[in-house]
Amino acid sequence: MSNNMVPVGLSNRHIHLSKEHVEILFGQGHELTPIKDLVQPGQFACEEKVDIVGPKGTLKGVRVLGPARSKTQVEISFTDGFALGVKAPVRNSGDLAGTPGAKIVGPKGEVTIEEGVIVAARHLHMHTSDAEKFGLKDQDVVSIKVEGQRGLIFNNVLVRAGETHALELHVDMEEGNAAGLKNGMMLEVIK
Amino acid sequence: MSNNMVPVGLSNRHIHLSKEHVEILFGQGHELTPIKDLVQPGQFACEEKVDIVGPKGTLKGVRVLGPARSKTQVEISFTDGFALGVKAPVRNSGDLAGTPGAKIVGPKGEVTIEEGVIVAARHLHMHTSDAEKFGLKDQDVVSIKVEGQRGLIFNNVLVRAGETHALELHVDMEEGNAAGLKNGMMLEVIK
Repeated sequence: MSNNMVPVGLSNRHIHLSKEHVEILFGQGHELTPIKDLVQPGQFACEEKVDIVGPKGTLKGVRVLGPARSKTQVEISFTDGFALGVKAPVRNSGDLAGTPGAKIVGPKGEVTIEEGVIVAARHLHMHTSDAEKFGLKDQDVVSIKVEGQRGLIFNNVLVRAGETHALELHVDMEEGNAAGLKNGMMLEVIK
Repeated sequence: MSNNMVPVGLSNRHIHLSKEHVEILFGQGHELTPIKDLVQPGQFACEEKVDIVGPKGTLKGVRVLGPARSKTQVEISFTDGFALGVKAPVRNSGDLAGTPGAKIVGPKGEVTIEEGVIVAARHLHMHTSDAEKFGLKDQDVVSIKVEGQRGLIFNNVLVRAGETHALELHVDMEEGNAAGLKNGMMLEVIK
C-alpha cells in the first residue's frame, strides 16, 4: 500500500448556522446540541434539524452542523438543488458571493437567506504535520485515486492544511456513490 | 480538441419490463407508448411509469423504457437503493443473477420480481464503425476524462460495440453530477 493514503468522509446535505439564525429558528438563547463529534476537531453533528425550502420543493430534516459560524451556509448535492429548484454552484466553503438563497424553517421560526446555498467543492483536510509528510501545503491541488469497479481519479482536489485540520478527504454523497465509496475507506493521493 | 471525443448520456432511474409484466402492470394486451426516442437505435422512453417498492421505501413514478425485454430490470442509483432499502450492486445490463428484487406497482396490477434491481455499470456504446475509428472492440475497457471544476477520470468503462449501438457514454445521475456533466457534453476517451 502506498504511503500517501487518506481516509474519505462522505458529506450528506447539511447546514451551518450563524448564531443569530440559531436563535431565530430554535428560540432566543438557544445553543446547538452536539450529538456526534466529526473527524474535524471541534466540529459536531447537532440534534437540531431544519427544512430548506426552494421555489420548486423542500428538503426536510436537514442536519445542522456545529459550532455556529459567522455566516449561514447550506451544503447540498446537485440532485438536491434540482429538487429545491435552485442552481447551487460548486464552491469552497465560505465562498458564498452570488450563490442562491433559500428559506430555512425551524421549529420556532424561519429565515430567508439571500445567498449561501452551495454544492461543496471536494477538498482534502490535513494537519500541518500531515502536509509536511505528504510534501504538500495549504491550497495545493492534488488528485485522488479510487480503485475498484467504480474506480476513478478525482482531479482538482483542494488541500486545506492547518493546525486545526485532521486528515480527511471530503466529498459529497454523489461523488462518493459515483466512486463506490464508504466512510473511512483509504484512498491514494496523487500529486 | 482530441479526435477521441464521445457524447455523454445521463441515465436517471428507470425500468425495463418484460412483455408479461407490461400486461400485468398496465392491463392485458397493453403495448408500451413511446414518447421520446433515445440515442440508442430502437430504444425509447415511454409514457408509462411505475412505483418501485422496497422494504424501506418507495420510488414513485419511475419511467419505463421500451421496447419490452426478455426480463424485467430496474436501474437505480446507490441513493435510490438506500431509500428503497435494497443493496443493489453495480452490474452490466442483463447480468442479474443474485441481485435483489422489489415490488413493482402499476395502474392495473403489481408484480414482485425476485431479482433484477441493479446500479448500472457505466459503459460506452459505439457502432462497429466507431470502434474501428477509435481502435477499440466490443468488451474493451477504457477510461474517460472529464475537464472542469469537478474534473475526473472514470476508469473501468466497458465498451459495448455493435451494429445496433450509437456512440454514447452512459453514466448514472450520481456519476454525472460527481463530474459536473450535462447531457450531450463531449468527453475524451483514454485507452
